[in-house]
Amino acid sequence: MKFKEQFNTIKIKKKSMLCVGLDPELEKLPGCVQSDGDAIFKFCREIIQSTAQFTAAYKINFAFFERFGAKGWQIIERLVEEIPQDCLSIADAKRGDIGNSARHYAHAIFGELNFDSVTVNPYMGKDSTAPFLDWQEKATFFLGLTSNPGATDFQYFTQDDQPLYSFVAENIESWNKINNNCGLVVGATRPEQLREIRKIAPKLTFLIPGVGAQGGSVETVVQNIGDSNALISASRSIIYASPENDFADAAALEAEKLQRQMAPFIE
Amino acid sequence: MKFKEQFNTIKIKKKSMLCVGLDPELEKLPGCVQSDGDAIFKFCREIIQSTAQFTAAYKINFAFFERFGAKGWQIIERLVEEIPQDCLSIADAKRGDIGNSARHYAHAIFGELNFDSVTVNPYMGKDSTAPFLDWQEKATFFLGLTSNPGATDFQYFTQDDQPLYSFVAENIESWNKINNNCGLVVGATRPEQLREIRKIAPKLTFLIPGVGAQGGSVETVVQNIGDSNALISASRSIIYASPENDFADAAALEAEKLQRQMAPFIE
Repeated sequence: MKFKEQFNTIKIKKKSMLCVGLDPELEKLPGCVQSDGDAIFKFCREIIQSTAQFTAAYKINFAFFERFGAKGWQIIERLVEEIPQDCLSIADAKRGDIGNSARHYAHAIFGELNFDSVTVNPYMGKDSTAPFLDWQEKATFFLGLTSNPGATDFQYFTQDDQPLYSFVAENIESWNKINNNCGLVVGATRPEQLREIRKIAPKLTFLIPGVGAQGGSVETVVQNIGDSNALISASRSIIYASPENDFADAAALEAEKLQRQMAPFIE
Repeated sequence: MKFKEQFNTIKIKKKSMLCVGLDPELEKLPGCVQSDGDAIFKFCREIIQSTAQFTAAYKINFAFFERFGAKGWQIIERLVEEIPQDCLSIADAKRGDIGNSARHYAHAIFGELNFDSVTVNPYMGKDSTAPFLDWQEKATFFLGLTSNPGATDFQYFTQDDQPLYSFVAENIESWNKINNNCGLVVGATRPEQLREIRKIAPKLTFLIPGVGAQGGSVETVVQNIGDSNALISASRSIIYASPENDFADAAALEAEKLQRQMAPFIE
């Protein structure tokens, strides 16, 4: 089944658009797991198990695993298998290279690691992204307007009154017509732009980081998009909800809180 | 020693600006190595050993290794150790993410894998790249104007008569002032733009892919830049110079041919 259909089924079943971001840092883990040689894996697995009923997708941020080199990749390989059938997986890898390289990156993420979706940087243009879109059942989320302060450096570069992020969104909306498997990353920290981008890109599934620790709110986000075709992602506010033994229960409570904020907007 | 000083020393010693791109594909390797369980590693090691005397840097394209998952990362870990002291290493990983993630990517490439330099995507702006620049001895090559056809999709987006690639180059030139450790990726397939970008970014070391299989020529490239502060990269034309047992010797001949084309331009 295509990613968008799967997401729709899960969203309605769980009344959730929640994406839990797995960005584990060893030094921030609760003391009870920190000394375990397999701490990162076990911590993430517990978070997944405790939050799955409230969660539509898990987003694995590759940076936090690659810092351990090949060992980090082994953790990713094991972790993606821990994601339950009724949750989607997102490889937050932000890849982007010319066609031949892109083909291998797509194989790595979708073939070798069997993720349901990936984040990709659009800077190198359509031919650098086509190999991802060829995986028709999988989804590719392009960076549109990101949640960080530096987003304004290049994404607001403006041609004929249209900023680059808007031009990117317009292009992705058009590339989406081929296989209906494109999404767009738009930061929750920029609610007015969410509304503007949704008008330009009505069919794209949004991936919206920046809720929770980065300051965005679920209600503002959904009201600005005007629909529920979006995965709203929180990381630190969930995975570090408690620094104690009860971290998994605390994460579940936090995930449930966000899921409840989303439920009224899901038809 | 800083990357730029190392490069200068190597360049003068070897009369070479050559960067050999390691983009190995199992099915394209010579029959004599293809069936070996460790074929990718052994093939690349032989290429390195046979070409090192003509080569200033090796660029490891992560896509071609990540396609094998964690095993591919293990090959990268072993391969980077095979690069001789008098050659620089470039992690062609094209990473790019917000500050906290960027910090981990930088640690992965510079700390864990001990590469001398990395390629980074500028789309997310300055705060997403600062953690790379903090590694003062290492170099960070930003994507400016790439060699692929899709480069025109977004990199030519124009504000007040200035295309995005030029605005990016201008910004990187300014970020370079802090630690003098920035470079710029500019495709050899766009010689006129090479000249234009060098005027905007006089201090940046260029990393120039697209010579050889992609059609760019060394002479045109260097004449357009007007100096030798550049690594000129060839991949397929060197590593696949022969499909037979003599692949390493053929690669050396091809590397030497390019090095001889470069020598007259190195003061």
